Amino acid sequence: MAQYYSRRNLNFLLHEVFDAASLNKYPYFNAHDRETIDMTIDAVTQIGDNLMYPYLRDLDRNPPELHNGKMTVHPKVGDYLKAMGEAGLIGTSFSFEDGGQQLPETVSSCLGFIVMAANNGMMYTGLTSGAAGLINSFGTDELKQTYVANMLSGKWQGTMALTEPQAGSSLSDITSTAAPQTDGSYLVKGQKVFISAGDHDQCENIIHLMLARIEGAPKGTKGISLFVVPKYRLDGADNDVTSTGVYHKLGQRGVPAMHLTMGDRDDCRGWLVGEPHKGLSYMFQMMNEARIGVGMTGAAIASAAYCASVQYAKERPQSRRLNEKGALDSPQIPIIQHPDVKRMLLLQKAVVEGSLSLLLETARCVDIAHASEDPEEKEKYHLILELLTPIAKTYPTEMGLVAVSNGLQVLGGYGFTEDFPLEQYYRDIRITPIYEGTTGIQSQDLLGRKMTMKGGKPAQLLFAEVAKTIAEAETHEELKPYAQKLKAELGRLQEVTMALMPYAMQGDIERYLMDATLFMEMFGIIAVAWQWLKQGVVAKNALLTQQPEGDELAFYESKIHTMKFYFHYEVPKTLGLAVRLKDTEVLTIETEKELAL
Amino acid sequence: MAQYYSRRNLNFLLHEVFDAASLNKYPYFNAHDRETIDMTIDAVTQIGDNLMYPYLRDLDRNPPELHNGKMTVHPKVGDYLKAMGEAGLIGTSFSFEDGGQQLPETVSSCLGFIVMAANNGMMYTGLTSGAAGLINSFGTDELKQTYVANMLSGKWQGTMALTEPQAGSSLSDITSTAAPQTDGSYLVKGQKVFISAGDHDQCENIIHLMLARIEGAPKGTKGISLFVVPKYRLDGADNDVTSTGVYHKLGQRGVPAMHLTMGDRDDCRGWLVGEPHKGLSYMFQMMNEARIGVGMTGAAIASAAYCASVQYAKERPQSRRLNEKGALDSPQIPIIQHPDVKRMLLLQKAVVEGSLSLLLETARCVDIAHASEDPEEKEKYHLILELLTPIAKTYPTEMGLVAVSNGLQVLGGYGFTEDFPLEQYYRDIRITPIYEGTTGIQSQDLLGRKMTMKGGKPAQLLFAEVAKTIAEAETHEELKPYAQKLKAELGRLQEVTMALMPYAMQGDIERYLMDATLFMEMFGIIAVAWQWLKQGVVAKNALLTQQPEGDELAFYESKIHTMKFYFHYEVPKTLGLAVRLKDTEVLTIETEKELAL
Repeated sequence: MAQYYSRRNLNFLLHEVFDAASLNKYPYFNAHDRETIDMTIDAVTQIGDNLMYPYLRDLDRNPPELHNGKMTVHPKVGDYLKAMGEAGLIGTSFSFEDGGQQLPETVSSCLGFIVMAANNGMMYTGLTSGAAGLINSFGTDELKQTYVANMLSGKWQGTMALTEPQAGSSLSDITSTAAPQTDGSYLVKGQKVFISAGDHDQCENIIHLMLARIEGAPKGTKGISLFVVPKYRLDGADNDVTSTGVYHKLGQRGVPAMHLTMGDRDDCRGWLVGEPHKGLSYMFQMMNEARIGVGMTGAAIASAAYCASVQYAKERPQSRRLNEKGALDSPQIPIIQHPDVKRMLLLQKAVVEGSLSLLLETARCVDIAHASEDPEEKEKYHLILELLTPIAKTYPTEMGLVAVSNGLQVLGGYGFTEDFPLEQYYRDIRITPIYEGTTGIQSQDLLGRKMTMKGGKPAQLLFAEVAKTIAEAETHEELKPYAQKLKAELGRLQEVTMALMPYAMQGDIERYLMDATLFMEMFGIIAVAWQWLKQGVVAKNALLTQQPEGDELAFYESKIHTMKFYFHYEVPKTLGLAVRLKDTEVLTIETEKELAL
Repeated sequence: MAQYYSRRNLNFLLHEVFDAASLNKYPYFNAHDRETIDMTIDAVTQIGDNLMYPYLRDLDRNPPELHNGKMTVHPKVGDYLKAMGEAGLIGTSFSFEDGGQQLPETVSSCLGFIVMAANNGMMYTGLTSGAAGLINSFGTDELKQTYVANMLSGKWQGTMALTEPQAGSSLSDITSTAAPQTDGSYLVKGQKVFISAGDHDQCENIIHLMLARIEGAPKGTKGISLFVVPKYRLDGADNDVTSTGVYHKLGQRGVPAMHLTMGDRDDCRGWLVGEPHKGLSYMFQMMNEARIGVGMTGAAIASAAYCASVQYAKERPQSRRLNEKGALDSPQIPIIQHPDVKRMLLLQKAVVEGSLSLLLETARCVDIAHASEDPEEKEKYHLILELLTPIAKTYPTEMGLVAVSNGLQVLGGYGFTEDFPLEQYYRDIRITPIYEGTTGIQSQDLLGRKMTMKGGKPAQLLFAEVAKTIAEAETHEELKPYAQKLKAELGRLQEVTMALMPYAMQGDIERYLMDATLFMEMFGIIAVAWQWLKQGVVAKNALLTQQPEGDELAFYESKIHTMKFYFHYEVPKTLGLAVRLKDTEVLTIETEKELAL
């Protein structure tokens, strides 16, 4: 077991379960095969081992500092950016002509998993590729030529400048302004908060992808435009973007969350990306990848915590088997042999590997929706992607948090100390259910938008995929009971959906979405149950066809064991959730008389 | 709503639900009535308001430091100790002759709740009274006269020195030694770790209650003795207790967790408390109070987090009602009006007030078991206490953690910053499921010891009490459905117990306790459901008999509302837990072949 992720498990998911190389049947991906994929994974792992994981603590201990307008971050961030840029590992999914490697998102997202598991405090490159992606997709050739190459090289940092003090989850209330100038640029003015990597000294320029309103634009989300706002203009002149403040954070301390002021001196220039008033729709086209990225961060931190707690549990002797309490002359046993500790470790493994599987399933939809030339296939995977994205963002972050807390508990008092990394992972992962749309927002997206989209077609398409897995599993005696459990869960989920739909049809959206977060929790458990059954089928087939031995035998057996654990310990939680979701008692909607709290 | 706890709610529980003053029917408590109780609560609240809460941040930012053997802690700790000592608020439950106030534990534990809610980083006095209590209960008159008064005055700090590097949860493996000397003292030698308040500069002496083995003592728990080991001897001489190290912790940073070395120079003297080899049994007689104290800390931190998140939710405008999304001209609404936020607030309220209620129920058992002169009543409350203690330690800490995390989520990105106290509470509370026996240990105590004690008599006695509450609730139409829900839950719990018992009878303790932590979770949910129904009955009676208006009306209505919330959102979780607990699939017990993790 590595220090922060299991390569064997990544290979299992990437090659045995999702057969990433087979995506090269699509012309767009035909440059890649298993060898090129593995080489890329090797390269990123090397960076993780050498330039990231060794500085996990050090970045946390030495957070970014703002001194009279100048942001300094840990110097190792520069080494990381340089290495990633030189290896061409920023924006790997970009097309060749755009300076990328045309790598499937299925693979690119694994690279994100590895770097975030190695040191999630170095969350810089994902922001840059996201920002560059926006310019790529919607910017003029001039904007592309000006910015993209310098960003993918790691020289220029990219950011997403959305949130404003008065508009957190509510982007329709954005008030930053943009006034057109004769030279085609815009004079930009506004405040942005929580801008990750919003300023630092380990790059040559910061390129903000900023949302603002062009004077006279319509109210709400339909009046928001997207601009490129660099820290320095091309001639090197200061572009009037001020670092007003840096937040002191619970975790992920290696990357600054900035409060920025654009246009303090009325001299901040921005360049429009795409058409006016379409900024939010552009943002949302990037949002799927961004949300998968945050889900990956949750899975990654949980993976690193799992690795650390397994290692501790194998080495720490404590007490004796419960059936041999009296045997005081016998030595203490490693705590991994205690059922309660084994349970906490299996829970972590089930969450980490189940989450990663769900995320790769989702990334695969991105790839097929993008690369397929068959319109029907394209639409199918696009719709499944729309449905899975909020779940793939939420399950790994919410349950990742629970997994990390269990990892800390495995270490007892030592888990609470800075002698082990668990306490840091517990702090770091806490932001992930908030980033890129909180769990509440994701849940409203799932139930409010995705479940009702096209008369429920996305869910129909997804359930058909799940049914395929169930059918495969039923061919194995050992898996049959789990196939049947999953079938029952699908039925339960449909019942709940049917119970809620009438509220949507009556237009009582508030009532319909009242417990959306619980619906999300239930759907997430079932989606991951599907992933575990899928992994169980692949493992079972491997055991039957390859007759593996030694570590390989143990690996596949532990996959089936963990699948069983998930079904016996996690899946039953849907019973209580379904009861509540079908329950007609309304307790969280304001009546005229406000509840005293 | 106060900044860290609701006095109105404390009054409701203390006076209306548990009628603490009525304990003065027992001669031992006859000096107290509602007035003396309220005066004591006022006094502690004043200390909390003036000397504790204002320094919450400052203690966290300036943790204890160890410089060449000398421990310095935040100077405000001294002011706090002085004020508590002078007001006679350390060891309030001690008898008058022992220098206490002979206050019921029901009230004393509320004082602990208030100080821990105000600033849990000042966790010093509970340790002192616990240590002084051991000397009081089991020490010679000489030991009592020498130590107790100085400890209760706050001049001398007390500690519990149990844990050793190789013996965390497994006290039977303690190796510290004690060699009898001609003068009646013992020469003590050993290492102790995680000793809270194990050394600091805001007191005149540190009195360690230390577990060690007298030479030639039997192996295991039956060979452990208890000693008083002061930092300085009575003549002021250094007693060879070295501060070897201080742990850097995730939270509760105001109080140092020390690594101590006794007898580095072979000159550390200890004085035996009680009889040889009985040390652990003495410790366990103090353990109930200590575990209630940790449960209180969980409830207290969750209370402070709840207060902070409610305040934020009332003030923070964001977005519009889900049924009025389009109304962009209408102002944003305070987020407390969003159902998902209301749900997170109600969850916190349900956990905080349900936990506090369960803790007072448990403390009341301490009082009656102690003060009753009717042997049958005495035994009854002693047995219920034995059963409730591990639950009262675990539910408020495990669910308190969930509540605090929900509180942080209410604040979104701001919750992750140091601009608000939520991130600190999230760190602080994480130790509580570990202190004084981890959740795993508490769960083994509940299912392994307390459920089987005297043929299950403790559970029978408890269920009879629950039945009384159900009967009262059934007299109110509005509460009847909840009374029936609770009845059904009791049945479910009995089914689960019956399903597990055979393993215990066969002596397969490992299998019996395999999922003890899930049994604890289920029992905890039901125990708190009982407390909520109890509160519902009292609130309902108040509404009917007092016809309250204004804030009082709102208070009682919100009690019934929160009771309903708990039954509709939290209680259904037992369905999945029961399925797992009755499930025969064994997945966490080692087979001969170890599972690859």
